[in-house]
Amino acid sequence: MDEQNNPETTEKKEENVIYIGKKPTINYVLAVVTQFNSGVGSVTIKARGQAISKAVDVFEIVRNRYLNNVRNKEILTSSEELTNEDGTKTKVSSIQIRMVAA
Amino acid sequence: MDEQNNPETTEKKEENVIYIGKKPTINYVLAVVTQFNSGVGSVTIKARGQAISKAVDVFEIVRNRYLNNVRNKEILTSSEELTNEDGTKTKVSSIQIRMVAA
Repeated sequence: MDEQNNPETTEKKEENVIYIGKKPTINYVLAVVTQFNSGVGSVTIKARGQAISKAVDVFEIVRNRYLNNVRNKEILTSSEELTNEDGTKTKVSSIQIRMVAA
Repeated sequence: MDEQNNPETTEKKEENVIYIGKKPTINYVLAVVTQFNSGVGSVTIKARGQAISKAVDVFEIVRNRYLNNVRNKEILTSSEELTNEDGTKTKVSSIQIRMVAA
């Protein structure tokens, strides 16, 4: 039962990722809250481009309105290169916010 | 000479703040690069709402194209309440990215 005593194994962490896209912000807020309520210790949200602002909104709403014990463990940014349909390349920034329940 | 041994005094940090608004991204990139080239050790960019995505772009472009020795020291998010002209209140997320030259 070692696995139960250590919920932060790498495999576990990778599972709880929510990608922020074009749906309303509240959808992602509820997805994060549902994950935490199901008992996981950490949830990561990822977003690219314009959705980065929405990712920060999701984190702030979760923390201020729903789960006061959740805090930001780590915020990382990076830059990804996408290939467009016409073969040209576009660089797009991305963000990754890892939240943990205290 | 204790102060010299501790370059991270609060006063120093507060000075080099760049607010990200509606201008083109490259304007803010050059503002950050100019600050670092003038010899400061740390620059902070702040943004609210939709400009948050642009702040991450600015940081990624500075780091990848201009100053490879700059790294992200700290990324903080918060939530601010603004009062609209009609008296209603709106919550808006904000981000703060502190960069240091290694």
